[in-house]
Amino acid sequence: MSLLVVGSVALDSVETPFDKVHEALGGSATYISLAASYFSAPVELVGVVGNDFPKIYIEMLEQHNIDLEGLQIIEGEKTFRWGGRYHYDLNVRDTLFTELNAFQNFNPVIPERFRKSRYICLGNIDPILQMRVLDQMIDPQFVVCDTMNFWITGMKQDLLKLLKRVHVLIINDSEARLLTEEPNLIKAAKQIRELGPEILIIKKGEHGAMLFTQDTIFSAPAYPMEIIFDPTGAGDSFAGGFIGYLHQTKDLSADNIKRAVIYGSSMASFCVEKFSTKGLEDISYLQIQDRFREFRKISSFNETD
Amino acid sequence: MSLLVVGSVALDSVETPFDKVHEALGGSATYISLAASYFSAPVELVGVVGNDFPKIYIEMLEQHNIDLEGLQIIEGEKTFRWGGRYHYDLNVRDTLFTELNAFQNFNPVIPERFRKSRYICLGNIDPILQMRVLDQMIDPQFVVCDTMNFWITGMKQDLLKLLKRVHVLIINDSEARLLTEEPNLIKAAKQIRELGPEILIIKKGEHGAMLFTQDTIFSAPAYPMEIIFDPTGAGDSFAGGFIGYLHQTKDLSADNIKRAVIYGSSMASFCVEKFSTKGLEDISYLQIQDRFREFRKISSFNETD
Repeated sequence: MSLLVVGSVALDSVETPFDKVHEALGGSATYISLAASYFSAPVELVGVVGNDFPKIYIEMLEQHNIDLEGLQIIEGEKTFRWGGRYHYDLNVRDTLFTELNAFQNFNPVIPERFRKSRYICLGNIDPILQMRVLDQMIDPQFVVCDTMNFWITGMKQDLLKLLKRVHVLIINDSEARLLTEEPNLIKAAKQIRELGPEILIIKKGEHGAMLFTQDTIFSAPAYPMEIIFDPTGAGDSFAGGFIGYLHQTKDLSADNIKRAVIYGSSMASFCVEKFSTKGLEDISYLQIQDRFREFRKISSFNETD
Repeated sequence: MSLLVVGSVALDSVETPFDKVHEALGGSATYISLAASYFSAPVELVGVVGNDFPKIYIEMLEQHNIDLEGLQIIEGEKTFRWGGRYHYDLNVRDTLFTELNAFQNFNPVIPERFRKSRYICLGNIDPILQMRVLDQMIDPQFVVCDTMNFWITGMKQDLLKLLKRVHVLIINDSEARLLTEEPNLIKAAKQIRELGPEILIIKKGEHGAMLFTQDTIFSAPAYPMEIIFDPTGAGDSFAGGFIGYLHQTKDLSADNIKRAVIYGSSMASFCVEKFSTKGLEDISYLQIQDRFREFRKISSFNETD
């Protein structure tokens, strides 16, 4: 059974203090699928684009063994476009424009042969659509879900319904605080786990990520990077690496979930090294293993020599 | 040879959303000395108070084998007082008042028998005074220094002179960015190490701490705390645990410096569990070892089972 990914597919125009790109490949489903493809191809992608979506992107995704049967191409529509500008401090960005286009009326229809998939990654879209995906699945056993402040503020009731049906929620620290109105992250995490997700991952950008399960709190460092070319897609790459590794290994022990957090962090670090999806397009297995070991190096210490 | 600590000794009035205290013991030298005393007593303290300084605090410090020959008691002066209020989000605090009193004209005079000490911790005071301390020492071999935005902004040239004479600088992430005007912490760290300190520790509060040496980047997690009673003194307790452990072990290998960061983090976590210095007044060796092991538990992961 493959891993199913649902989310946005977009054309991103991004400016950073270093460079800019115009209508490069973007979108949550794109980043998640690409990152997951290194662990667990084929990946089944469900999304929507317009008929202006460049063929070269289709080809690149297919080269990564991403199954695009679920990618709807809407005639006479344009693809979702997003424009953003990052500040010198890359933690700060402005959205320059959002043109939803084909994405506006996205209705995720899961192709018949995708419905058996048990590992599902719900990229950041309307929680009603995320639930509609789950409704179509035959036996969803491990559902990973992302969301954002827009849905937490505007669609809280639907989001709370969704949370009862997901196994892993991946959000950032400000979203965790917004969802619970609790400034202490450890308390906020406890409260969020009571809303449904057995496993909670709080992403903290340059400060790494935290994993919360029934018995475990695990703190993963960030990969120390002097140059970040484009932070876009880091969180989605994390989610893709995380679920891809777990789908590959089929081991949901605490130790393996910790490793999955590190593989997720590794994929996020590759993502931000280049613009758009370029950082995820050509990585070797060896590079991923090396990065994993570097994470060990920067976070391990011993009781005595 | 003992460990020398120089800094402020104060009476703090602190309000948090949970409780408040009036004129409780505080000050950087106090927290550093207490935290260090668990590893490396006697600790030599140099500071200044007024003759209103309560005897019970003197007694408590002496019970922790803190040598107070260097604590000047100024007749007719009052002790430095600070008042602050923490918000519901404990990362935010307002200073309510600062009464420098005896501290205003502090001139750190190092008693003759303290001058041979080779391990020195310079708490956050005017960099000119920090240099004056070093001028009096016979053979300062391991100098740990703290500073703050006030000195970075107002006394930058003196601070830069001081930095050439210290081995370890401990500052927080916003101070590191302010000092270098570089938003990327990894780049900022590199630049700061070029200013003098071989070892740089960047404290990140709830996100832990990072250690930078010639060959090492080490990311230490924060201890996951649901309840923080009083964040005052956490950074000083970190510095005290760090230098105390290194003075005790006399081992400046990369592995031991990492352990010192974890012992520092442990002492900071004990500090914030109670108001004022209460969290540092009665800890057992076993509790410190247990906390150290908990840090290992929350940050360790393996390549395979």
